[in-house]
Amino acid sequence: MSETGATTILKEEVDIVIPTIRNLEFLEKWRAFFQPYHLIIVQDGDPSKVIKVPEGFDYELYNRNDINRILGSKSHCISFKDSACRCFGFLLSKKKYIFTIDDDCFVAKDPSGKEINALEQHLKNLLTPSTPFFFNTLYDPFREGTDFVRGYPFSLREGVPTAASHGLWLNIPDYDAPTQLVKPLERNTRYVDAVMTIPKGTLFPMCGMNLAFNRELIGPAMYFGLMGDGQPIGRYDDMWAGWCMKVISDHLGFGVKTGLPYVWHSKASNPFVNLKKEYKGIYWQEELIPFFQSVSLPKECTTAEKCYVELSKQVKAKLGKVDEYFNKLAENMVTWIEAWEELNPSSVPSKSDVLPNGSAK
Amino acid sequence: MSETGATTILKEEVDIVIPTIRNLEFLEKWRAFFQPYHLIIVQDGDPSKVIKVPEGFDYELYNRNDINRILGSKSHCISFKDSACRCFGFLLSKKKYIFTIDDDCFVAKDPSGKEINALEQHLKNLLTPSTPFFFNTLYDPFREGTDFVRGYPFSLREGVPTAASHGLWLNIPDYDAPTQLVKPLERNTRYVDAVMTIPKGTLFPMCGMNLAFNRELIGPAMYFGLMGDGQPIGRYDDMWAGWCMKVISDHLGFGVKTGLPYVWHSKASNPFVNLKKEYKGIYWQEELIPFFQSVSLPKECTTAEKCYVELSKQVKAKLGKVDEYFNKLAENMVTWIEAWEELNPSSVPSKSDVLPNGSAK
Repeated sequence: MSETGATTILKEEVDIVIPTIRNLEFLEKWRAFFQPYHLIIVQDGDPSKVIKVPEGFDYELYNRNDINRILGSKSHCISFKDSACRCFGFLLSKKKYIFTIDDDCFVAKDPSGKEINALEQHLKNLLTPSTPFFFNTLYDPFREGTDFVRGYPFSLREGVPTAASHGLWLNIPDYDAPTQLVKPLERNTRYVDAVMTIPKGTLFPMCGMNLAFNRELIGPAMYFGLMGDGQPIGRYDDMWAGWCMKVISDHLGFGVKTGLPYVWHSKASNPFVNLKKEYKGIYWQEELIPFFQSVSLPKECTTAEKCYVELSKQVKAKLGKVDEYFNKLAENMVTWIEAWEELNPSSVPSKSDVLPNGSAK
Repeated sequence: MSETGATTILKEEVDIVIPTIRNLEFLEKWRAFFQPYHLIIVQDGDPSKVIKVPEGFDYELYNRNDINRILGSKSHCISFKDSACRCFGFLLSKKKYIFTIDDDCFVAKDPSGKEINALEQHLKNLLTPSTPFFFNTLYDPFREGTDFVRGYPFSLREGVPTAASHGLWLNIPDYDAPTQLVKPLERNTRYVDAVMTIPKGTLFPMCGMNLAFNRELIGPAMYFGLMGDGQPIGRYDDMWAGWCMKVISDHLGFGVKTGLPYVWHSKASNPFVNLKKEYKGIYWQEELIPFFQSVSLPKECTTAEKCYVELSKQVKAKLGKVDEYFNKLAENMVTWIEAWEELNPSSVPSKSDVLPNGSAK
């Protein structure tokens, strides 16, 4: 599809969600690409601080006071002083597609020197099917100039709906604290010109820096957990969301893509601070991955909400013994879904439930 | 590792296997890269025809008469008048690594214009571990300039031995006949600068045009089936080998990589001829894929040979009803292993079974 086509059609169906603690000068660099879209800014930290947003952007901004006011007794499910608070924006949005980006990510250039419209590429990824059941060696078969290769079963070529599009980063790679400490100078300079579906049954480390998803299909699974202030870990918010989202997408028959688009990640976070946030996650993860690899959801779970509630039960039953934290997390997973259902009542038909002539299905 | 390092160390451990029906002028283009290595040429078709090999190459050439003489009553397991005959070269080799390439594949150039040493890249892929249990979003973590990303479990970072390296093609993509007919002018111009492990449990369409593998680990599973003269299908030889090899690699804990290196595929084969060869494969495949996706090998199968014999039994039991051809194929799978064991007696310790001081393990 042409860039203009996708942009025009989808302008009203996309929200850009940005968690931040600072003035958003970085938006100046994105003006050409983001200005047509609506922004949801989630202020992470001291609500008395005033965040400046460059002129001309269409945005709403929520701080902790707003979160408490809007969610009331459920507000504890949203993390404080951690970018995990971004999922509050997912909850509030009424749009079909979400693009979320960190405020230290800038416009990257492709090898020809052209500035990359990251949102545009994410929409292309989300609007074309995924192929999770069989690997295509020439990568995304729906991309222009390529196709399914010889030996790809014809019955699988229709593909499945794409739930999420995971973009990458040039310059500072998304490394954990130990790797940052060992390789302080490593920079990602390799532009890999590919988009691919992560196969069914395979988990991956989902980074929240440059991520888009179909909120109608998978929004309720995009909970970024409990991190930051008062919690024993940080920097596992996006990982948690990614594991939950992937097993639920696999169960519901949706696809997850990774690869293009790149953003330019400008600065490495402090590895010592990161180590403190991560260290429990690093060893808990060794039990979390086998758990997620063996999760099985019953047939009755036909929506992301139902899957997520069922998953919370399995988290409690199987991870509660790893640490008390997971019991608390499991409870907050349920609170998150309650908040989701309150703010997104299913009685209001979503766009996709409405036929072209306006009558409900 | 440096290019020179890998080349020097491995020169004596690599055979290049080429199936052909014509004079091998294409080797002139590869001289700089292939001349240090030993070639095994398998003549495909009329044995009375003399195949010319450019001067200066170290090679052995086998035609159908040689195959019949060497394998005797087992020679029926090697296809005639089809490039599937290449696996005769795998059987005869005594080397640890095999690189097999078609004679219509030339040296490709990377985006900087540098000629790609395909064999060198395959050896890099084979000499570094694979990561089949979890997806790394920055692709092969063992490549220079990259690593495992945040959230990749530390216990999985050692990786597993790499059994096979599947390279790609610029110019003419490896399409099936229907796609060739629909898109006669499509050319692959996209250089994707990546190598990745195909996750455990995921099948892929393995193309034999540009392929390398560790013969000690997976050689016995690299049987290219019964194709060509007297057989009901063609152009599924490499697919068959790929499906068998992948389920066996998954079972034995080996990895399979795809991506770099590219070769320049010079000419598309005739789509009408291809359609005739492929059409049964195209519909049989719809039953073959679910079969391979559900194959389970018992614990006692601890070598590629044992796995392959067990797989032949399952082929007979479950695919025999698809077509009588699969009963015949299953029998020839067993013959292939008998031939393998005859020509590769396990009493002779392979290099990897010998300790540095020369004593057997």
